[in-house]
Amino acid sequence: MKKNQAYFEEQIQPLRDEIDRIDSDILSLLARRQEQVKKVVALKKDCDVPVFHPAREEDLISRIRTQAEEKKLNPDVTEDLFRMILRQSRVNQTDHMQHKGIRPGARILIIGGTGQMGAMFATLFDKSGYKVRILSESDWKNAAALCRDIDLVLVSVPIEKTCDVIEQICPYLPGQALLADVTSIKEAPVAAMCRCHKGPVLGIHPLFGPTTTSFDKQIIVVTPGRNPEAGHWLLEQLAMWGAILVQSTPREHDEIMEIVQALRHFATFCFGRFLFERQVHIQRTLEFSSPIYRLELGMVGRLFAQDAGLYAQIIFATKERRSLLIQFITSLNQHLDMLENNDPRAFVRQFNDIAQWFGPFSDQALRESTFLIDRLIERF
Amino acid sequence: MKKNQAYFEEQIQPLRDEIDRIDSDILSLLARRQEQVKKVVALKKDCDVPVFHPAREEDLISRIRTQAEEKKLNPDVTEDLFRMILRQSRVNQTDHMQHKGIRPGARILIIGGTGQMGAMFATLFDKSGYKVRILSESDWKNAAALCRDIDLVLVSVPIEKTCDVIEQICPYLPGQALLADVTSIKEAPVAAMCRCHKGPVLGIHPLFGPTTTSFDKQIIVVTPGRNPEAGHWLLEQLAMWGAILVQSTPREHDEIMEIVQALRHFATFCFGRFLFERQVHIQRTLEFSSPIYRLELGMVGRLFAQDAGLYAQIIFATKERRSLLIQFITSLNQHLDMLENNDPRAFVRQFNDIAQWFGPFSDQALRESTFLIDRLIERF
Repeated sequence: MKKNQAYFEEQIQPLRDEIDRIDSDILSLLARRQEQVKKVVALKKDCDVPVFHPAREEDLISRIRTQAEEKKLNPDVTEDLFRMILRQSRVNQTDHMQHKGIRPGARILIIGGTGQMGAMFATLFDKSGYKVRILSESDWKNAAALCRDIDLVLVSVPIEKTCDVIEQICPYLPGQALLADVTSIKEAPVAAMCRCHKGPVLGIHPLFGPTTTSFDKQIIVVTPGRNPEAGHWLLEQLAMWGAILVQSTPREHDEIMEIVQALRHFATFCFGRFLFERQVHIQRTLEFSSPIYRLELGMVGRLFAQDAGLYAQIIFATKERRSLLIQFITSLNQHLDMLENNDPRAFVRQFNDIAQWFGPFSDQALRESTFLIDRLIERF
Repeated sequence: MKKNQAYFEEQIQPLRDEIDRIDSDILSLLARRQEQVKKVVALKKDCDVPVFHPAREEDLISRIRTQAEEKKLNPDVTEDLFRMILRQSRVNQTDHMQHKGIRPGARILIIGGTGQMGAMFATLFDKSGYKVRILSESDWKNAAALCRDIDLVLVSVPIEKTCDVIEQICPYLPGQALLADVTSIKEAPVAAMCRCHKGPVLGIHPLFGPTTTSFDKQIIVVTPGRNPEAGHWLLEQLAMWGAILVQSTPREHDEIMEIVQALRHFATFCFGRFLFERQVHIQRTLEFSSPIYRLELGMVGRLFAQDAGLYAQIIFATKERRSLLIQFITSLNQHLDMLENNDPRAFVRQFNDIAQWFGPFSDQALRESTFLIDRLIERF
């Protein structure tokens, strides 16, 4: 055995050295690639060409897959690797590009510009060459001056204050000014803006928090109020920063957000609350956990790492939301029977109906989540 | 503008060509790396050295990070890339190595060896040089012959049949045979095995489904019943296949699984059921969705892509589980008050108590899930 060990050490060293040399060469190539990408960015900036080029990217990936197969590398793993490399270079490009303004010099007033979301927009507009003014709670005495010759007023205040703030600011607005808000509900604010302001009105809802470091591929829902052409430059600006814009009506937006935000966060809250009531030993359950449990428990933990007030706003925003959540609890009460009667067959019947209704989404979800679980195993 | 476009095309082409050349060189290096790794595997096989070498891996990663910084690459992204490369090479190594038997030639009887989980174990044992026998439902008349001189009997049947099968097989077992089961509950089966068999007894619960392609870093819970030394070779075999073993008692295991499996799957079922009742337009909500919603809805869809009967078994397995789920529904009903009275302050108070209780896990969960969300944006 001792001889074996010595033999092994002697034989393995040159192989390891060679692997280390290869890794070092890969790093040098990645660094050279980064240099080339910088040149591409500079050129795009010069020529006013947008950064993200989906066709070029898919073309590159498909050639990478072909080459990987020729070289007897696993094409799926190789694709994943290159998507990671491409994303990194896209983020770098966006960082450089996001300063570009569609309408530099335009005057923008951000109401609530000292809040987190307002401050993020203020920074971005400022970097892109706009003239940014801020109206915080103590500035209302200067509202008239702040609104003079303004091109865009962006309302970024807590949900429950949005409609009041809209009513307060409108008397000061020039008729042609674009009025927009970033509240996470859209029906009431867009109606208030259309009622109080005679000029162009636009509702927008960025589906991400103020801690997001890049707009790259982030979704923003857009619900036009009046005269959409006048808001076109603002949408172009959001797209230039990397966002994906989804068009909707205020009503559809709010119905979908009842599910996507209120119901989902409330369900997560209920799960966390029950773990707390039972005083479940979180760390020990993690030791026993498949990656998917770790992921799901992580979603619960993630909620409670964030601001209680923000989630209270989201959940209690409207009467419709609260009544949806009451219906959710009522729906759960239906399941008491099958549990009390120990009736797994009732469960299987319901399960199969739901599975059929979910249809192809289920298989897609299984594939996507399996991909993520593999990443999770890899990383932690 | 037209001139600009022509200028851009002319300038960008050589930069893109250079990037394509660099990518092709990276691929060649990855292929060479794969060749070297194959040689390492062959050597390890020769010398009976285990495949996974955590120290070597961490050492390699820390050198990669240093080099990345020297080369002005982002060290975090570079680490992610190399962890992906390393994992792939580890999976390849495990594929080659998993045939290695700790006690080749030992006779193993798998009861339920034609089921999915049983078949997976049968294949693995067979590849590792064991003599595998299968007892399916129609083979009970041959039970005596199948148990002759057997070294290990592994029970892999549906939860509700496990205890009956244990009682049926025990009269045929040689006294020194190791009796083990892979059921997802442990208290009742381990008690039944200890009661009916006088020899060594071991409960194991693999926390993954039969569709798993590799044991690499997968968790198996081990709950010893009697004479643990006699089961040592089996545990070594599982570890050799790449699994991580977690020791527990049957009672602790079952309590934790009530949460990790029954409660979690039931909560997911309830959420899916409510979406179905409301006939929510899944595809449209996805267009409006932040990556985290996509991930959470994916967890729901994933459940319904799988077997209803399996989840019915898990949820209805024991009286304790059913009563836990009834308590869960009861806990939700407490929240009706704050919704009906529109009392966000009650929500905030509870939220903060729970957040404090989750403690550092929340921040860790936020970090981990943010990492995954980035992967998800990257990929889809």
